[in-house]
Amino acid sequence: MALDVVMYHAAHDRIADRLAALDLPMRVLPLGDDGTCRVDGAAVPLAEVAAEAVWLSLEIAQSGMFDDCMKAVAASDTVKWLQTFNAGLDHPGYRDVAAKGIRIGASNAQAVAIAEYTLAQVLDVFQPLAEQRAAQAAGEWKLLRFREINTTTWAVVGYGSIGQEVGKRAQAFGARVLGVRRAATPSPHADRVVAMDDVQSVLGEADVILLSCPHTSETDRLVDADFLAACKDGVVVVNVARGGVIDDAAMLAALDSGKVATAILDVFDPEPLPAGDPYWGHPQVRVTGHCSFAGNGTLARGDDLFLANLPRYIASEALVNEVDLDVYLATLR
Amino acid sequence: MALDVVMYHAAHDRIADRLAALDLPMRVLPLGDDGTCRVDGAAVPLAEVAAEAVWLSLEIAQSGMFDDCMKAVAASDTVKWLQTFNAGLDHPGYRDVAAKGIRIGASNAQAVAIAEYTLAQVLDVFQPLAEQRAAQAAGEWKLLRFREINTTTWAVVGYGSIGQEVGKRAQAFGARVLGVRRAATPSPHADRVVAMDDVQSVLGEADVILLSCPHTSETDRLVDADFLAACKDGVVVVNVARGGVIDDAAMLAALDSGKVATAILDVFDPEPLPAGDPYWGHPQVRVTGHCSFAGNGTLARGDDLFLANLPRYIASEALVNEVDLDVYLATLR
Repeated sequence: MALDVVMYHAAHDRIADRLAALDLPMRVLPLGDDGTCRVDGAAVPLAEVAAEAVWLSLEIAQSGMFDDCMKAVAASDTVKWLQTFNAGLDHPGYRDVAAKGIRIGASNAQAVAIAEYTLAQVLDVFQPLAEQRAAQAAGEWKLLRFREINTTTWAVVGYGSIGQEVGKRAQAFGARVLGVRRAATPSPHADRVVAMDDVQSVLGEADVILLSCPHTSETDRLVDADFLAACKDGVVVVNVARGGVIDDAAMLAALDSGKVATAILDVFDPEPLPAGDPYWGHPQVRVTGHCSFAGNGTLARGDDLFLANLPRYIASEALVNEVDLDVYLATLR
Repeated sequence: MALDVVMYHAAHDRIADRLAALDLPMRVLPLGDDGTCRVDGAAVPLAEVAAEAVWLSLEIAQSGMFDDCMKAVAASDTVKWLQTFNAGLDHPGYRDVAAKGIRIGASNAQAVAIAEYTLAQVLDVFQPLAEQRAAQAAGEWKLLRFREINTTTWAVVGYGSIGQEVGKRAQAFGARVLGVRRAATPSPHADRVVAMDDVQSVLGEADVILLSCPHTSETDRLVDADFLAACKDGVVVVNVARGGVIDDAAMLAALDSGKVATAILDVFDPEPLPAGDPYWGHPQVRVTGHCSFAGNGTLARGDDLFLANLPRYIASEALVNEVDLDVYLATLR
């Protein structure tokens, strides 16, 4: 029997030729902008489609259909695999999907983009780009010195696909990379890996701390007063994980004391960051509106990931970036 | 007999302990800010000091003594080795030094800094850092998309120590690196290396072109109308070499036609860039005042290089980053 797979119509258009070349026993049920799938020529509401697999490509995030898609998957009696554009599974729908034992392929497609965002931001903090622009505008020939990444130490809290892409680049810049992950398993591009339980042991060494971990019961408000007290004076903190990983009151106090020199924050709790939030106008804080993922290659890498996982699913193999449902459910907030 | 080495007094202070630990048959003649060296307790004008080696550390560049130092070395009957802070040997004094057969150790100490400068500038062009800042200042939550370095192609014209440090970082970002150097010898961090004579063959592939070559008779006005015509539309050009490598009229025409999307220029002919030069106010040009070298690690790497070359010189071995005097003299402008 053919595998019925729901995917957004434009995603299908992009990969149709590559799908055909794979010649797999499957059928595509394209999801339209009206929330219905084309099935045997008819328009069937997603909630009534008996598909075995659902691929939520990046377009779904901005489509207005995401909530309904998650509801339909969680309510389905047929779906056995959900491939999603999300790297972090905060949306409450994932709890229900995971609880039903539906396999979840999380996305690593944004990892490259987030790594480029991170390096750009840190280089912008270390180098006087704004001063250079101002000098140019004023026609001033000015020797502006800068801090190098070379020989700095980076603690990467959450050393999964995103953390490792950052580690690879930071290491090429001559930084020492300390990965922090749930289990201290040796990982690419890390000079050392420690377990999350030992995160405090590396904080005093780090010039840059990147938060790239999932937001779980174990990482909720991880960056609190104790965490920050253990940091080096003048540390740069980058958060591309989730806003809830930081205790905002503690962070603001650490910024004001100078313990944290600069916080680069792309994620917040809640989002959008409310008007009047002290982060907006804080001179040591760079606020971006959850756009670290938005590199021009993320969409295509999501296609690649789906196309890599499809034959794996059919062959009953482990998926690339598959969620460990037991860990996920055990560490839900 | 002990080797007499002239070095700036502050440089001597920095490395004194490390020098002592090397326990070499040598004597330091510290150069003071008044242009005299301490020799056996007396203050001797540099031009009268009979030293065999002279180390011009980075401080000399800003000291006001550089011209006099070069004159003294060129006029000396005793100097056999000049270790300099310069990566590019444009100063007319080097011609005389080389013509006398004095060995020259050029500097690779700025390579790491220049590579960090280059990546910061390109990321700043590819990512909307200025727009992010403006959005934050306005309190606007805004999804700003960006271009990735991943999958772009970089042509690095001049694939020496600077080019290779850039290549290493660009490759870690997922870029394809095409090195261009005098001889097409395989080199680290390059996907392909072509000879300078074949530079035209790679220009059409490059999204980013880095100029990091010496300014010689072979590279003078290398980037002219023909060179630029062979480039991809919308190329980003970075010049960390010397201003004379670019034909400015051709570059301005290529900027205006859109052939060159952005030029990042740290070096000019002449320097400082004169007031009223069209580069200053050009919206597609980023002007910095010859500061790509000015990372906080450059001084210390210069110390390391001198300390690496000193025992090599004493053992009559090739120096790290030693100038090939025949090539240098044959390609002088």
